[in-house]
Amino acid sequence: MKHFEFENDKLIVLDQRKLPFEKEYFVCSTYQDVYIAIKDMIIRGAPLIGIVAAYGVVLGFKEIIEKNMDSAKIYEILNYLANSRPTAVNLFWALERMKKVFEEARNLSKSQIYSLLMQEAKKIEDEDKSINKKIGEHGNTLIKEGANILTHCNAGALATGGYGTALGVIREAFFAGKNIHVYVDETRPYLQGARLTAFELSEDGIPNTVICDNMAGYLMKLGKIDCVIVGADRIALNGDTANKIGTYSLSVLAKHHGIPFYISAPISTIDFNIKSGSEIPIEERSEDEIRFFNGKKIVPDESKVFNPAFDVTPAENITAIITEKGVVFPPFEENISKLKEK
Amino acid sequence: MKHFEFENDKLIVLDQRKLPFEKEYFVCSTYQDVYIAIKDMIIRGAPLIGIVAAYGVVLGFKEIIEKNMDSAKIYEILNYLANSRPTAVNLFWALERMKKVFEEARNLSKSQIYSLLMQEAKKIEDEDKSINKKIGEHGNTLIKEGANILTHCNAGALATGGYGTALGVIREAFFAGKNIHVYVDETRPYLQGARLTAFELSEDGIPNTVICDNMAGYLMKLGKIDCVIVGADRIALNGDTANKIGTYSLSVLAKHHGIPFYISAPISTIDFNIKSGSEIPIEERSEDEIRFFNGKKIVPDESKVFNPAFDVTPAENITAIITEKGVVFPPFEENISKLKEK
Repeated sequence: MKHFEFENDKLIVLDQRKLPFEKEYFVCSTYQDVYIAIKDMIIRGAPLIGIVAAYGVVLGFKEIIEKNMDSAKIYEILNYLANSRPTAVNLFWALERMKKVFEEARNLSKSQIYSLLMQEAKKIEDEDKSINKKIGEHGNTLIKEGANILTHCNAGALATGGYGTALGVIREAFFAGKNIHVYVDETRPYLQGARLTAFELSEDGIPNTVICDNMAGYLMKLGKIDCVIVGADRIALNGDTANKIGTYSLSVLAKHHGIPFYISAPISTIDFNIKSGSEIPIEERSEDEIRFFNGKKIVPDESKVFNPAFDVTPAENITAIITEKGVVFPPFEENISKLKEK
Repeated sequence: MKHFEFENDKLIVLDQRKLPFEKEYFVCSTYQDVYIAIKDMIIRGAPLIGIVAAYGVVLGFKEIIEKNMDSAKIYEILNYLANSRPTAVNLFWALERMKKVFEEARNLSKSQIYSLLMQEAKKIEDEDKSINKKIGEHGNTLIKEGANILTHCNAGALATGGYGTALGVIREAFFAGKNIHVYVDETRPYLQGARLTAFELSEDGIPNTVICDNMAGYLMKLGKIDCVIVGADRIALNGDTANKIGTYSLSVLAKHHGIPFYISAPISTIDFNIKSGSEIPIEERSEDEIRFFNGKKIVPDESKVFNPAFDVTPAENITAIITEKGVVFPPFEENISKLKEK
């Protein structure tokens, strides 16, 4: 089974907290289960959060039918799911699409509405995969033969409907025969790099080396990094990009060393409603993600812990943004606006 | 008991790998045990490595007496201990002092030599504590009331004979009544920050917050860091400084944000024989330090792992070096040479 599947009125997701050494599945029978899957990071990754939330709406509407509730209850469900996590804009984008389908179908029968919602969720999922393939193709034009690529967190198949955004570019380059190698930041505290990215790359036979996050700058200084590619959780109109905590530091280090720094993301990650990164809400997660490791305490009780899940990389540190409609270079303000029109 | 103690012909050291939640002691009865204590990081921290190695020579000479071996066997012991770890220069500096004592006492009886070696080891230990107090006093002049200080790894009492170098400055500022707060990088892979620095600070009631290493840049951007203070494992004549992996990245980030970046170290950390950091050997440690976390595997077997224990921060990223003889500002080449003459 792949990392998520909707079948028999249930959304079954691979529990990404347990990867790569345990394969456990979490079954979402209700939209509340989907909320938990997103909030507790059983699944994560901006595009995947969007897809899963869309299926959450489907499960919610199923309940509306079964319990013979008013269709308008869907607004409550949409709102509930929107509160699962604050930073990734794909969540709101996907819920918006589901809402639109509902509103256009409002006068149809409930079972017809259900079918249309299901269709839309499936469409969001399918589109995401083909979008990532296109992102990969565009991004591949930036990757040189023999490149050493640094990535952070997991912007791979596991973070999306499939293929991945940052890892989509890496896959495309590798399968095009380029002799590349990937340095993978382990990505504390959740270790998406060590656990998920290294796992995905290794499964595909792509040579990779895991490092601690604090080693990236030293590797750059040694001349061992040719470019950095990461995903995104939300991109503002001016190009400022929220992504996994640590991305900002990498962007400063890359700039200092004259290394290209690429964001790889679908256009659904662009928030056309905000002008700059200062408007992006940054989620703070539980202290325990840092305080405990594999159930074992590593920080003294008297110490406080600060755990922001994301940071914002300013546009001036970004060399280009790789999207399904092509590679966007500065000036971002102008060129991102054009994407909307395309 | 403190974190190390020489008594009844044994060196007993607190096993720093187990801190802060377990207090286990490792007993060194032979110089080979001391080698293991250093190599396996049962104890760590450049100044402490020097002190412990000195006691290792004492234990070695005890064996020479007991087994009625030639005194010249001490050269083998010195050489053996010198190979325990490559980067911290305090190790070689302390062994050099022990060697000198031996050579000057060579014609005395073995038991007299033993006494003199013991005296010297004790002197190295005692000097280190008073040196750190002086470092603290000089460094305190750089710390502003209400400062938020970022530190990396552990340059505390546990890394030294007592009081600490970077933490010596922090202690001095705190006990002088300054209302400071410390951000502590957890410091992967060994977690010296989360486990040792946070523990030491909390024991002394100094307010502190643990963060993941990849969060430091974001905090700087938010304006939450007023200065960075770290220790050192080896300082070259031009001011280039080897310290725990991740220090280099912090120095680039601090420079980018216009934040003062201080090295705090005794003069024994200066290697007057090398001109620049490029001559400092950087230890690569076992992959397993990253591959396993609390005994649990976190990296897929197919992935490689890179684990450099240190990096070199170029002098131009360093605002000042705090020593027991005062605060050294650029030009470092000139001002470091003066320290030797003092």
